[in-house]
Amino acid sequence: MNGGANPGDLPYGVFSRPGEPRRAGVRAGDHVLDLAAALGDEVFSAPSLNPFMALGPTAWRETRERVREAAGRGDHLVPLDQVTLHLPIEVADYVDFYASLEHASNLGRIFRPREEPLKPNWRHLPVGYHGRAGTVVVSGTPIRRPHGQRPSFGPTEKLDIEAELGFVVGVPTRPGERPGAFEDHVFGVTLVNDWSARDIQAWEYVPLGPFLGKSFATSVSAWITPLDALEAARVEGRPQDPKPAAYLRRSARWGLDLTLRVELNGEVVSEPPYRDMYWTPDQMLAHMTINGATLRTGDLFASGTVSGAGEPGSLIELTWNGAEPFKAADGRARTFLEDGDTVTVTATAPGGIRLGEVSGTVLPAT
Amino acid sequence: MNGGANPGDLPYGVFSRPGEPRRAGVRAGDHVLDLAAALGDEVFSAPSLNPFMALGPTAWRETRERVREAAGRGDHLVPLDQVTLHLPIEVADYVDFYASLEHASNLGRIFRPREEPLKPNWRHLPVGYHGRAGTVVVSGTPIRRPHGQRPSFGPTEKLDIEAELGFVVGVPTRPGERPGAFEDHVFGVTLVNDWSARDIQAWEYVPLGPFLGKSFATSVSAWITPLDALEAARVEGRPQDPKPAAYLRRSARWGLDLTLRVELNGEVVSEPPYRDMYWTPDQMLAHMTINGATLRTGDLFASGTVSGAGEPGSLIELTWNGAEPFKAADGRARTFLEDGDTVTVTATAPGGIRLGEVSGTVLPAT
Repeated sequence: MNGGANPGDLPYGVFSRPGEPRRAGVRAGDHVLDLAAALGDEVFSAPSLNPFMALGPTAWRETRERVREAAGRGDHLVPLDQVTLHLPIEVADYVDFYASLEHASNLGRIFRPREEPLKPNWRHLPVGYHGRAGTVVVSGTPIRRPHGQRPSFGPTEKLDIEAELGFVVGVPTRPGERPGAFEDHVFGVTLVNDWSARDIQAWEYVPLGPFLGKSFATSVSAWITPLDALEAARVEGRPQDPKPAAYLRRSARWGLDLTLRVELNGEVVSEPPYRDMYWTPDQMLAHMTINGATLRTGDLFASGTVSGAGEPGSLIELTWNGAEPFKAADGRARTFLEDGDTVTVTATAPGGIRLGEVSGTVLPAT
Repeated sequence: MNGGANPGDLPYGVFSRPGEPRRAGVRAGDHVLDLAAALGDEVFSAPSLNPFMALGPTAWRETRERVREAAGRGDHLVPLDQVTLHLPIEVADYVDFYASLEHASNLGRIFRPREEPLKPNWRHLPVGYHGRAGTVVVSGTPIRRPHGQRPSFGPTEKLDIEAELGFVVGVPTRPGERPGAFEDHVFGVTLVNDWSARDIQAWEYVPLGPFLGKSFATSVSAWITPLDALEAARVEGRPQDPKPAAYLRRSARWGLDLTLRVELNGEVVSEPPYRDMYWTPDQMLAHMTINGATLRTGDLFASGTVSGAGEPGSLIELTWNGAEPFKAADGRARTFLEDGDTVTVTATAPGGIRLGEVSGTVLPAT
């Protein structure tokens, strides 16, 4: 399992060799560069990227230069097939947004068919909520089908995925401090699969939002791609009407021309375009903190399901809540996830950018 | 500031002396017992109670015996007025429930006047959601009035409190492991004030729940009262109709006969009875994990606003969203919080039990 990331992007992860402690590494070809050994810096001996991420953009850029040189020398490279990859960050708070116009409209139509699909607030602020940080797991971790009230009690019959892009905060803020620019705080990006039990969610979510329908597991890539590697993917954000409040105005291009690819058992079922997202991640960061909430190193905020026209990032949209099955390559009609299914999300962008994949296989309920 | 807790309950906290690192202590009279020094155990040299809380009920009970002896000897006692009290736990995930029938009914009537006050799910499961762990602060921390969309942008005009009881998880679970009994995981209780900006909350909360209306600050007591100190307060939980699902059945008495007291600038405005809560904390724990979600040491889950008939735990209920002001001792008509207000929540129970207070003063918006 090499995690799919483009080695040229020099993405960061956490690895271990058998019997040895976890430590930070950078993907370089089919190898991991052992950062503590190669750069002689103890910050990389930590079992997560958090201490390094806390150092800030100057250190991130300098390290990237030194990593390039070190990888070229060929020392301290460990073959990928000799390591285990771990959750790369210690997640502080996990926030999930709802930033795709197509996704929010689709879910509104499905969950509230007699109402306007978008709530009145949706075009005025990036709607979001806190998820469970303690159940964020690394790509490859099996996903156990959850039980819950659907409203009758039992294993979910509507296990779904949400293909998302996640943003990892490196530089925290102190109480009373407003965050600076997006790139002064955000270290990098990761792919996210926010596994969802739609029957549990539909019953529980009023009025305080999703809870157990989401909190059993959220998968992230083993590799964090630093912002600096995404230069070629940056584009203007999608036009917004009405004009957002002053604190939500964009001052730099943080739209990203990434195309996600959702594979179910190896078969591509959707290719959602991230560049069509309504709210950009700089706006999410500004919103999340406008009330004075502080940032911590390791905060993870995700975009919400990335859905474009005809390219949804979830099965509930693809199959219209199961009413419109699709035919899989094996000829079977499919709706929600079955035990044994493997879902893999990847993403590419111009310039050869390739994010680390996020993958998981469904285990039967116990 | 001694924090209000009953020294006889031997509550745990984290303190420091000027120029010295944080460490664990137990309230003993007007002193803090320096646990690392008194018991010679490094687990108490940590800057939070988490390492100790992770040890489990046997260690908790043994420590309580040793603390009783040590406090009696009179060594290693630091006068309370010579220490600073800190956030006693490192908060992992923070979950807030909505367990009071009176509170949920009142909020339903206020926020959704044309609908049934309780949503169909409410009597079937303890409704809850994840809050922001990174902005949980210790009692005494000033609370800055937050900005946000109300929906026009500006400082909240409806700053409120929520008087709650919080439960702190000590013993974690592994993936796939169902939690054991409530008292095998939960270390103790704390008072919580979940500060709320009602105008921000009312605009943002559909469909994914409260976010910025809550995430600016949540205050907890400086003292965690261990479960063992609450024996005399334990009562049967409130009768429930319909009968809850099997996983939510009560097997022990975890209703608590605590009476909260909410003081605004020293004047008692409400005395909510915790024993009338509809959902008990053992049910909250069972619900939170029934989908396979793991527990971490430091997880904090709170009851939601404690409101009894005529004794609400929030100002939005006390003043019916500001429509029915009350007259304060100084003769002024009052609704929501004003800059400079101090709110203090305390709680007592039979047998002289007294939880550590949670207090905060409102600072003007910047």
